[in-house]
Amino acid sequence: MPDLKAAVVGATGFAGSELVRLLARHPQVVISAITSESRAGELFSDVHPQFKGIADIELITADQLSAVDSDVLFLALPHGVSMKYVEQFKDMGAKIVDLSGDFRLSTPALYEEWYGMPHTYPKAIETAVYGLPELHAEKIKTADLVANPGCYPTSAILGLAPLMEHHSIEPDHIIVDAKSGVTGAGVKAKPGTHFSAVNDNFKAYGLKRHRHTIEIQSLLGGLSGTDPTILFTPHLLPVDRGILSTIYARVKSDLSEDKLTDLYHSFYQNAPFVRIRSSAPSIKEVRGTNFCDIFPTYDERTQTVLIISVIDNLVKGAAGQAIQNMNLMFGLDERTGLQQVPLAP
Amino acid sequence: MPDLKAAVVGATGFAGSELVRLLARHPQVVISAITSESRAGELFSDVHPQFKGIADIELITADQLSAVDSDVLFLALPHGVSMKYVEQFKDMGAKIVDLSGDFRLSTPALYEEWYGMPHTYPKAIETAVYGLPELHAEKIKTADLVANPGCYPTSAILGLAPLMEHHSIEPDHIIVDAKSGVTGAGVKAKPGTHFSAVNDNFKAYGLKRHRHTIEIQSLLGGLSGTDPTILFTPHLLPVDRGILSTIYARVKSDLSEDKLTDLYHSFYQNAPFVRIRSSAPSIKEVRGTNFCDIFPTYDERTQTVLIISVIDNLVKGAAGQAIQNMNLMFGLDERTGLQQVPLAP
Amino acid sequence: MPDLKAAVVGATGFAGSELVRLLARHPQVVISAITSESRAGELFSDVHPQFKGIADIELITADQLSAVDSDVLFLALPHGVSMKYVEQFKDMGAKIVDLSGDFRLSTPALYEEWYGMPHTYPKAIETAVYGLPELHAEKIKTADLVANPGCYPTSAILGLAPLMEHHSIEPDHIIVDAKSGVTGAGVKAKPGTHFSAVNDNFKAYGLKRHRHTIEIQSLLGGLSGTDPTILFTPHLLPVDRGILSTIYARVKSDLSEDKLTDLYHSFYQNAPFVRIRSSAPSIKEVRGTNFCDIFPTYDERTQTVLIISVIDNLVKGAAGQAIQNMNLMFGLDERTGLQQVPLAP
Amino acid sequence: MPDLKAAVVGATGFAGSELVRLLARHPQVVISAITSESRAGELFSDVHPQFKGIADIELITADQLSAVDSDVLFLALPHGVSMKYVEQFKDMGAKIVDLSGDFRLSTPALYEEWYGMPHTYPKAIETAVYGLPELHAEKIKTADLVANPGCYPTSAILGLAPLMEHHSIEPDHIIVDAKSGVTGAGVKAKPGTHFSAVNDNFKAYGLKRHRHTIEIQSLLGGLSGTDPTILFTPHLLPVDRGILSTIYARVKSDLSEDKLTDLYHSFYQNAPFVRIRSSAPSIKEVRGTNFCDIFPTYDERTQTVLIISVIDNLVKGAAGQAIQNMNLMFGLDERTGLQQVPLAP
Repeated sequence: MPDLKAAVVGATGFAGSELVRLLARHPQVVISAITSESRAGELFSDVHPQFKGIADIELITADQLSAVDSDVLFLALPHGVSMKYVEQFKDMGAKIVDLSGDFRLSTPALYEEWYGMPHTYPKAIETAVYGLPELHAEKIKTADLVANPGCYPTSAILGLAPLMEHHSIEPDHIIVDAKSGVTGAGVKAKPGTHFSAVNDNFKAYGLKRHRHTIEIQSLLGGLSGTDPTILFTPHLLPVDRGILSTIYARVKSDLSEDKLTDLYHSFYQNAPFVRIRSSAPSIKEVRGTNFCDIFPTYDERTQTVLIISVIDNLVKGAAGQAIQNMNLMFGLDERTGLQQVPLAP
Repeated sequence: MPDLKAAVVGATGFAGSELVRLLARHPQVVISAITSESRAGELFSDVHPQFKGIADIELITADQLSAVDSDVLFLALPHGVSMKYVEQFKDMGAKIVDLSGDFRLSTPALYEEWYGMPHTYPKAIETAVYGLPELHAEKIKTADLVANPGCYPTSAILGLAPLMEHHSIEPDHIIVDAKSGVTGAGVKAKPGTHFSAVNDNFKAYGLKRHRHTIEIQSLLGGLSGTDPTILFTPHLLPVDRGILSTIYARVKSDLSEDKLTDLYHSFYQNAPFVRIRSSAPSIKEVRGTNFCDIFPTYDERTQTVLIISVIDNLVKGAAGQAIQNMNLMFGLDERTGLQQVPLAP
Repeated sequence: MPDLKAAVVGATGFAGSELVRLLARHPQVVISAITSESRAGELFSDVHPQFKGIADIELITADQLSAVDSDVLFLALPHGVSMKYVEQFKDMGAKIVDLSGDFRLSTPALYEEWYGMPHTYPKAIETAVYGLPELHAEKIKTADLVANPGCYPTSAILGLAPLMEHHSIEPDHIIVDAKSGVTGAGVKAKPGTHFSAVNDNFKAYGLKRHRHTIEIQSLLGGLSGTDPTILFTPHLLPVDRGILSTIYARVKSDLSEDKLTDLYHSFYQNAPFVRIRSSAPSIKEVRGTNFCDIFPTYDERTQTVLIISVIDNLVKGAAGQAIQNMNLMFGLDERTGLQQVPLAP
Repeated sequence: MPDLKAAVVGATGFAGSELVRLLARHPQVVISAITSESRAGELFSDVHPQFKGIADIELITADQLSAVDSDVLFLALPHGVSMKYVEQFKDMGAKIVDLSGDFRLSTPALYEEWYGMPHTYPKAIETAVYGLPELHAEKIKTADLVANPGCYPTSAILGLAPLMEHHSIEPDHIIVDAKSGVTGAGVKAKPGTHFSAVNDNFKAYGLKRHRHTIEIQSLLGGLSGTDPTILFTPHLLPVDRGILSTIYARVKSDLSEDKLTDLYHSFYQNAPFVRIRSSAPSIKEVRGTNFCDIFPTYDERTQTVLIISVIDNLVKGAAGQAIQNMNLMFGLDERTGLQQVPLAP
């Protein structure tokens, strides 16, 4: 099969460099272009020195992309910016995987409510497919625009999907207590990402109104035909990569540890990147990979299901999942180029 | 007032060295002895080199303590070991603050159920006072044996006490999702405390049956006259010190953010070490100090109270609280020797 | 003795908050004012939440300082800015401890060469005293303007002073390989201080031409009456605080381990903050304190003296040393307010 | 070409798991066996959970290896143990790459002097080839027993080799100030590898007499026909992986920055894993890869060459280099299976 020509729009951020890390070794891909408005003219390896000898590619501007032949565009841009480029690129003949939040919600009104700005390209919301391959593979295969899921939602939705689909838990009062590495906050230097604000420290943030709340709620609602309420609390870990979600939900009816385990194994039997674990996984056990490791367990004493779900926020929570989506969109085995072994320690 | 003579039993662990850090600068204390079975004969500063020039005290064995005049003994020993020494020291004429879990539960049966061993000195359980000064100051003042609270329970109980006492929340299905620094796991080198098992990593442990569950439940039950169920999930943070508990409880009746804030301010108005915060605190903001910082907030959308409670597990969660108890037991201002400023960054 | 009124100019940086941490508990000091141009009108504890209940002091601008009665001003400002304020405050009747590099070098020409800008207040260079108390106590006692030493120079000069004064080493080709925590790079959020640029990482920087090179050379030259050449290489450690300098120098004549140890003990016998160690110290063993721990050793095989010198860059390398200088300038015991025990772990 | 059958002897350590990480994805290798004396009978993925679904291989004892058909054995064992197995396996018909220090030195006498124990299989010292592929590729290709270089020596020797071979520096008084991540200290839980002994900390160790000193000296001596003296000082970084060596040497004759750069580019022009950098590299820029990044620079002021050399101690310093050696020993392109992109951040 001939190689796919893939362009990465937005080179300076963590998602951008992670896309290049994975695409540079993807056996069916050639990188057609990498863009950066602020660093155009420099080499990608000037911006990210670890790529010296691996991706010494001259950066171009997004406008110059129209002169480049590409099969797929990965947009690694902030929300609000991304929708403008999706519109600009709509007639280029390339499929698009958008890593921002701009096309994840189902209506412009919801977007405006949670993102605090009007949506400038609402038409594309209708055709965009939410790209969580474990749930939406069929739709992804034919999509032209995939909205790549948020990092927290990926871990939370995969953790809860079997229970929601089987109506095993009360849809009210589901609690997602999530902890993320700092790369989730972006590459930009801010007081909150200063080493000394994070190191040997730990805190909660975005209490009660983080944008990923609505993304999780909407997806789980769609999956179960209910209107669940999720209380989502993110925290900032002093680590680079990784999300661990500790999820609590009350059981509706009879459950046992065995039933629960069977449910998860069965639900994910064809999902090569979901590993059902028999004890609590740590974030390092998936570092650098597209795995989502899930440990579901039942606490009879409190009649609560407790689920631990871990991902690498830059891989399964961003660049890896984007490439998994690309694989599906172009008829490749979804595992292609995503077979890394976790880097631990 | 003449100085108190204080002995520290168990010098090699983190609680032991933290006790000496605080006692060495306590204006009303002289350290009468420090014991270690494995390092007796060496200097305390040989074991903990940071104390060179500060506490060059020769270590003795616990048996040699009987020859030393002491007003108070701090036992910084593992559970199971501590109860033997409490019995051995019972006629020495010294008050005892025990930092282990041996005298925190109310009956020998509960102890055996959760600690997996019979209690060898059940008589002392009856007279021991649970030493959480914000709740039990009067009893502590006259106690001869104080059971110093566990680190997790300190943060959880202080976080929930106002709500429990005022019956503002459903006593069922309270969730304490707690995250602790590694010193909570003790000084012993184990695979799980190896740097590379912890660094850039994060995981849950002790799911569903951690011993601190029963300690939290019992205390809150006693406070509210109810029989609450707590689901307590501890996690291991890649930091040295600090516990952050994220606590979720469903409200019983009408609540508002203002009422909630007032409740906490009022409940802790005379507690010099509890700081009610107006935004989410981080663990570094209490590092090295006896503070417990609490941020209570109400999520109207999900009718849930969300409480963030942070302490330094070695200070308010161990050595600092032990000294606060000593201050009360000997008629001193409870703040004496505990006025450190948080070390941040 | 009546209390000293001390003002801190520059509240938002790490040196500023560290000064307040120490001054707030100094038994002979009241804080008269804290200034910040960007945050004036807010409380100091709004900027640094760890100070809630400890230093809820309203910030003023530097211009407002003239209306405040102060005995001593601590300038915690960037170089280039500091010299302007030293001039502005010259008639306020307060002694000044300047923590910047503006008054550390002996001539305006040297300053311009190494700092890349003209000196705007050269007159004060003549009267400023370099404030390393272990070497210059007598001059400090009568100084009106003290130039507080740089963090790296403090560790390097204290490590080398005994050898230089006794002409025991070749003054050429002294190597100072130094490693610093991130707080040395300042509080400002920059790409290089982003958590993910530092965490689990390590690198050298400022190769061959770091400004502290000239400061170290000048001071050691003055001490020995020679013209030494120092090759100084700083590195950035993934820690908040602490500098460890590994120093290499060739011996001139006969030396032995015993002679070397004696030399250091004798040189620093009256220096309460220098601890001569008998094995290699770690940075955590001085964390939060004004100690400089030094381990000198002689490698007969290569005829090289190897010195390990560690400090907390924010204390002995900045705020603590500034207060030690203040103590000397006002006739106090130099240890006053600086008796903290190292925070380890 | 048919696949190589590779066995890993010693599964529980860091080098063992890193070998499996790389071999599991090596396109020309099948893993024939993995051994562990303490965990035989369990799965490799029970010991290292990150390998679940990737290497669920049942561990066998070393004695059982004789029943397994293998082309190459990787010994990931402590020194002293390794030589016994090399002898035991000598007639198995498999080539051996030994990752310990047992066959790196040229004589049994040297071994006994620096390792403090007699060598029990001195005969094999004579035939063993020191496996630094950038210097010894021809010998490695025909070797039956390769002594895989130490981690520190790899970074130091590659950093100095061009200068030594060209006699550009004084062979006396070369200083290698090296800093390593904790995995270099092994997987065993010891007081010194406890998280709280390392985190936010930094220290030197093994001063003046670390075993790698003699390895570096011997190799550089052989390369240059001189008898150099190296002063090697290792330090422990609070990171998992990575070694950065800062190397100082006095120039013998005329040198310039350009000449120096040319020398390094020319020396390593056919070395695919050595990247000559034009500024100081950080350890994260090679994390997870077989790269050695080197930045050589000349300080005219002090007539000193300063070299920064970084590797991942578990890859180029252990498992990766071992596989590079295997590739050479079996006629493969040395890059096969070693094309990982650095994992940064």
